[in-house]
Amino acid sequence: MALHAQTRSLHQRGSGRAFSQSCRPPRVALTKCRASTMQRAIQEENYVNQPPVTLLRAGIDTEDTIRAKFEKVIRDAQDSICKAIEEVDGKKFHQDAWIRADGGGGISRVLADGNVWEKAGVNVSVVYGSMPPEAYRAATGNPELLKNKGDVGRVPFFAAGISSVMHPRNPHCPTMHFNYRYFETEEWNGIPGQWWFGGGTDITPSYIDEEDMKHFHGTYKAVCDRHDPAYYEKFKKWCDEYFLIKHRGETRGLGGIFFDDLNDKDPETILKFSTDAVNHVVAAYCPIVVKHKDDPFTEQEKQWQQLRRGRYVEFNLVYDRGTTFGLKTGGRIESILMSMPQTASWLYDHKPAPGSREAEIMDAFRNPRTWV
Amino acid sequence: MALHAQTRSLHQRGSGRAFSQSCRPPRVALTKCRASTMQRAIQEENYVNQPPVTLLRAGIDTEDTIRAKFEKVIRDAQDSICKAIEEVDGKKFHQDAWIRADGGGGISRVLADGNVWEKAGVNVSVVYGSMPPEAYRAATGNPELLKNKGDVGRVPFFAAGISSVMHPRNPHCPTMHFNYRYFETEEWNGIPGQWWFGGGTDITPSYIDEEDMKHFHGTYKAVCDRHDPAYYEKFKKWCDEYFLIKHRGETRGLGGIFFDDLNDKDPETILKFSTDAVNHVVAAYCPIVVKHKDDPFTEQEKQWQQLRRGRYVEFNLVYDRGTTFGLKTGGRIESILMSMPQTASWLYDHKPAPGSREAEIMDAFRNPRTWV
Repeated sequence: MALHAQTRSLHQRGSGRAFSQSCRPPRVALTKCRASTMQRAIQEENYVNQPPVTLLRAGIDTEDTIRAKFEKVIRDAQDSICKAIEEVDGKKFHQDAWIRADGGGGISRVLADGNVWEKAGVNVSVVYGSMPPEAYRAATGNPELLKNKGDVGRVPFFAAGISSVMHPRNPHCPTMHFNYRYFETEEWNGIPGQWWFGGGTDITPSYIDEEDMKHFHGTYKAVCDRHDPAYYEKFKKWCDEYFLIKHRGETRGLGGIFFDDLNDKDPETILKFSTDAVNHVVAAYCPIVVKHKDDPFTEQEKQWQQLRRGRYVEFNLVYDRGTTFGLKTGGRIESILMSMPQTASWLYDHKPAPGSREAEIMDAFRNPRTWV
Repeated sequence: MALHAQTRSLHQRGSGRAFSQSCRPPRVALTKCRASTMQRAIQEENYVNQPPVTLLRAGIDTEDTIRAKFEKVIRDAQDSICKAIEEVDGKKFHQDAWIRADGGGGISRVLADGNVWEKAGVNVSVVYGSMPPEAYRAATGNPELLKNKGDVGRVPFFAAGISSVMHPRNPHCPTMHFNYRYFETEEWNGIPGQWWFGGGTDITPSYIDEEDMKHFHGTYKAVCDRHDPAYYEKFKKWCDEYFLIKHRGETRGLGGIFFDDLNDKDPETILKFSTDAVNHVVAAYCPIVVKHKDDPFTEQEKQWQQLRRGRYVEFNLVYDRGTTFGLKTGGRIESILMSMPQTASWLYDHKPAPGSREAEIMDAFRNPRTWV
């Protein structure tokens, strides 16, 4: 993973003050505090009625940095996406916001028991933390970085991201997930500082609708093509590989785009791509939901959706890097597990009838297809 | 982890023929074969109409060994426990049985959509396999064994076990889990061969009934006391610690007994204890279900049970050694994930009302209690 001149400079500027007490954000009225019995890698959250203008540490981080620009992108995206979802659903998101004493915080918005969505959540978070070496390995996806380094202790990091999962009621409306994140680790005990972007948007229907898949994948192909003609093919394949439920040999859904550890261009260039991608979530997803939200469905179709939600749970708890990283580093559990569906089901040895629409999509989960 | 003379002799007898083709069990009519796209550490299962008298490799393993005695214990227990459950439920278990070409196999029995149980499963399995070092580390719980050994490759092992989860319909009937297993690893690339027993029985109610807990824990205290006066206190504590959902700081249920890596006595002695423990599952659990199976309940109580089932899923997929080991080694997925409830639920940031019966049991999940 190559380091760019600009990032080295970010790290140099940041070095030595990673956990300084002098960079606390301005005090805001606290409403409640969460107690936790687990050892926390991240400080306790202090709930606030209104999130501050920036969740970054005041001072250097709030200057003209990638950190600051990225925070603005994801907070604007949270506002615009939630607004669009509320317009389709008719119900409003509930908001929880918190800050941490030494900087960072988050904003969780959840729409539960909606008219269209059983559960939809959009989280923004900014974290100044430190992670154990195994979490660092999982986060970077690069086991080589720690090879022969001995016990390096906990690695300080900065992370900012937006993540979302939306589970509709109607089994003909797909679940959708997106996540866009920016990550930096400090130079630490002989391990060089790292930065990277990651993210993607992917869709999980219970039934195949070819037209919907052409629309969803087509939207993201157009976004990718504007930035790099190689991106869509590469990130579509990465998505199919990443969202594989290995123990079942089937994907969680019908893909989209996924990328991680992206730092092979100038950070401003990758920031532009990430911005374009997160700003096309609504265009890619909402028309599909609007089209199907009032489709009639049978009890059997609802049951099939519940079984696929069970698979969703399996993927998230066993394989998802964001979830497993979050559980290990002691982030805010309710935000990390907001991705869980409201209801899920498991049936022993369930097999769809040959020739059924359930068998049709199972084939696409086992053999990822080209949609555009 | 000390090795006993008898086990060294087991290993010596076994060495050099771990994957021999000459020890295949007798051929049985095959009914179906499962295809899987994942790389398998364990051979494919060949389904059979009737399981053979022994799932062990013919020859040495079927002699007067711990392997053979343990297999008999767990197969007898599977028969007697399923019979007792069928008598309470009124419905019958469905059986799947399979063998593997080079020895080993399993018998899954599942009662789905029962009158009393939403899903109850009792599995027996015998596995001759090999595990990657990280699975070996997880299985032995002893990271020291592989320290400074370099790349040791996959470690051959033998495992036999019975495992079960039973999820009743009525929210006043607790879920119950038990698992008793015997494990051996071959001497391998400088790592000494290991053997150990593991297991336990634990209970997961949605509401506290003190009398039930006294009965359940009391039954297992009596079993333990017959074998070692130190066992109950030690294994009760181990159970509370093992079934901790770390990211939530709460236990999965109200405990029972749990032990692992047990090899500090003669294997025949530990076998007697394991036998006594598995043979008291029905006495510890069934009276509680019979008492509550027709209790009236509200929609809210059912919803609370569903939320606790969500926690059950979180524990099993994130922390349970048997599950994570099984998923990594490519065992039969439907048997490994038979522990999943038929239905589970997640609600964002759900908190029971202070003073409610839900808050009462949450306190016991956060601060494990002494029941007997």
